[in-house]
Amino acid sequence: MNYTPINLEDKFTKFDEHWSPRVIAQMNDYQFKLVKVEGEFVWHDHPDTDEVFYVLEGELDILFRDGKVSLKEGEIYVIPKGVEHKPVAKSACKMMLVEPKGVVNTGTSDSDLTAQNDVWI
Amino acid sequence: MNYTPINLEDKFTKFDEHWSPRVIAQMNDYQFKLVKVEGEFVWHDHPDTDEVFYVLEGELDILFRDGKVSLKEGEIYVIPKGVEHKPVAKSACKMMLVEPKGVVNTGTSDSDLTAQNDVWI
Repeated sequence: MNYTPINLEDKFTKFDEHWSPRVIAQMNDYQFKLVKVEGEFVWHDHPDTDEVFYVLEGELDILFRDGKVSLKEGEIYVIPKGVEHKPVAKSACKMMLVEPKGVVNTGTSDSDLTAQNDVWI
Repeated sequence: MNYTPINLEDKFTKFDEHWSPRVIAQMNDYQFKLVKVEGEFVWHDHPDTDEVFYVLEGELDILFRDGKVSLKEGEIYVIPKGVEHKPVAKSACKMMLVEPKGVVNTGTSDSDLTAQNDVWI
């Protein structure tokens, strides 16, 4: 057993890239990822799974084809599987994502913003 | 679609009981639960699943039969499935739990602290 806590603030010091989730923990086949974002992401969806966004610092808008949700620090939102969404952060924002191992950040959309998967810090 | 964020601080105002997790979100068949704890819980394990503890306020010790992990605000720990553990909070502590729907707080141990499952707030 490893009795070391996973400290989020410490983990955030280990990378600077935007829109590039880093894995910090795995529970069964689900992963907890940290990500720094700023600006506009691409429209995409994840056809096989829901996805949780949890804003730890800053603010995030999640655009949907028929609406929008605005998250601030300490707020969570569950994006249902198969629903197209486009995250937008007007300024720097830090988040935790929870989703099954193997989920690619841009889902079914090819993009320059597609990040390498399963990168641990 | 419901475009309302889930605000953790607001959800914590909706209950006071200790060791009684309340569900705030579900992602696939996994639930996000908030819990207020203070004092000693019971030794127990969850034979079929890992479990994530995330301390949002205060401090929590998790005792194991051969060690201990001490979590403070902003720290996460993954308790592996089947591993006996006993959470202890010397003072008031607020946490988020992530685990599959249906997991009972006291696992395989019968206890006065066994809470009703799947209670949403």
